[in-house]
Amino acid sequence: MDLENFKAEMDRDARAVDAVMDGLLPLHDDPEVRVIEAMRYSLLGGGKRVRPFLVKHSADLFGVSVRASLRAAAAVEMVHCYSLIHDDLPAMDDDELRRGRATCHVEYDEATAILAGDALLTKAFEVLAGDETHSDPRVRADLVLALAKAAGAEGMVGGQMLDLVAEHNDLTMPEITRLQRMKTGALIAVCCEIGALLGKAAESQHLALNAYAHDLGLAFQIVDDLLDVEGDAAVVGKATGKDAAAGKATFVSLLGADRARAQARMLVDQAVEHLAIFAEKADPLKNLALFVFERRA
Amino acid sequence: MDLENFKAEMDRDARAVDAVMDGLLPLHDDPEVRVIEAMRYSLLGGGKRVRPFLVKHSADLFGVSVRASLRAAAAVEMVHCYSLIHDDLPAMDDDELRRGRATCHVEYDEATAILAGDALLTKAFEVLAGDETHSDPRVRADLVLALAKAAGAEGMVGGQMLDLVAEHNDLTMPEITRLQRMKTGALIAVCCEIGALLGKAAESQHLALNAYAHDLGLAFQIVDDLLDVEGDAAVVGKATGKDAAAGKATFVSLLGADRARAQARMLVDQAVEHLAIFAEKADPLKNLALFVFERRA
Repeated sequence: MDLENFKAEMDRDARAVDAVMDGLLPLHDDPEVRVIEAMRYSLLGGGKRVRPFLVKHSADLFGVSVRASLRAAAAVEMVHCYSLIHDDLPAMDDDELRRGRATCHVEYDEATAILAGDALLTKAFEVLAGDETHSDPRVRADLVLALAKAAGAEGMVGGQMLDLVAEHNDLTMPEITRLQRMKTGALIAVCCEIGALLGKAAESQHLALNAYAHDLGLAFQIVDDLLDVEGDAAVVGKATGKDAAAGKATFVSLLGADRARAQARMLVDQAVEHLAIFAEKADPLKNLALFVFERRA
Repeated sequence: MDLENFKAEMDRDARAVDAVMDGLLPLHDDPEVRVIEAMRYSLLGGGKRVRPFLVKHSADLFGVSVRASLRAAAAVEMVHCYSLIHDDLPAMDDDELRRGRATCHVEYDEATAILAGDALLTKAFEVLAGDETHSDPRVRADLVLALAKAAGAEGMVGGQMLDLVAEHNDLTMPEITRLQRMKTGALIAVCCEIGALLGKAAESQHLALNAYAHDLGLAFQIVDDLLDVEGDAAVVGKATGKDAAAGKATFVSLLGADRARAQARMLVDQAVEHLAIFAEKADPLKNLALFVFERRA
């Protein structure tokens, strides 16, 4: 894989989903537009758009229209963005920097940030349920169901709760793996599921994408932990060294950096192997897995 | 209408939807169950269940199964409950008392309350999109769409934002009416729309229910404002006198208590008239409108 070429491809896809998200959140002249402004500030402030990339290129495997897959991709990114806004709040992680910019509650205020997150989550379901996302209403209902399960108390929010209540110093590898599967893995996995649902994929194709996404999600998290230890805040775009300072067990604190990196590499290779049934059509997804391992931010 | 009989009927319906909500949020043994406990604490802590009543009895007009209408009713109540949890947060209204009990962030903590609200909102869409809610997937997708629009930045959340940014002392009657239509009216209106969607109602029936719900919602809010001025905190179950203390313009501060009461009465009568096309089948909805006017808490 040519990393620079791939980054350019990701960037083109990112700008395409940005354009869709921009169109889904029009500004207006009423005073409550402040919540739309806050949503747009956090949603459209850049980012690699890994999740939209996964949705689009999973859907591409089945010839789904780009119009449909970008709408669904926008919905997932809205959920990701809402989770970041709420996670950054003083009562949660209390972060002031995100993607190199002030976090939502710093730029606006806490109340506006809470509402902006709430409205992004709500908008995501509105987008998925809308006629334009798919002509078959069963697909639209199934998209909503899949995203809700991935984002809710059995998925992402459950993982965030677990992260708050866990006695981090005592976490074992199986426990931290479960935590990360819920906190970040569930939303990454549902990206591929959404692509498969849009494309009415066969069961074997669902399973292959699901296996890919689970390995990818864990690799992604391990690399995140490595960047938290080794990364430069200016490049990463958010505070680093926070986990160690907070005494949090991570893949890196449990395994050491070298074994963690080897584990991530193994997961990435495994993720790529799951895509064999799609042959070269899955090259973008394979390249993403390699990119996740190589990334420095 | 016999108020005591009607209260007993409301109470039976409330306990029926409580049972459904209880079943939708099972406890488990994993540590992240704390977020489920917080959701259950706020959701199952009593309440009149006005919104579930509206969903069920709107759906009843069209012979919808109680199983379906109670699931949809549970979804709306989850959205209502999430909005209360987030509204009560220190960064928002900073309330410590709700329905006579400690608010979610006081009973648990702020982070847990934020997550519990997020998870309730998410669960609502999961419930609506689920197979058991309706056999026709188009209805399920339309339910999601309707609830998302009512709850999001163009509805409830937009109204909450407006409430925060409004220069309250300068609000005119049209402005405060718009604020309340968004903040509380949109969710009340969607209850009746959900009943109509479940029952595949004709356009004229949709319109009648919508007109009823809009008048009812405004009457409900005016009575709320009256109770804030005249009510007893011990009966109302939350702090009273807050609007006046905050210098907030309300229907009562703009109209005076007597004219506000007359306005609520007029709206209730008008709401009841909109239901004429349903004849006596709409008696529960008519009685609810009268109850809203008579209530003391």
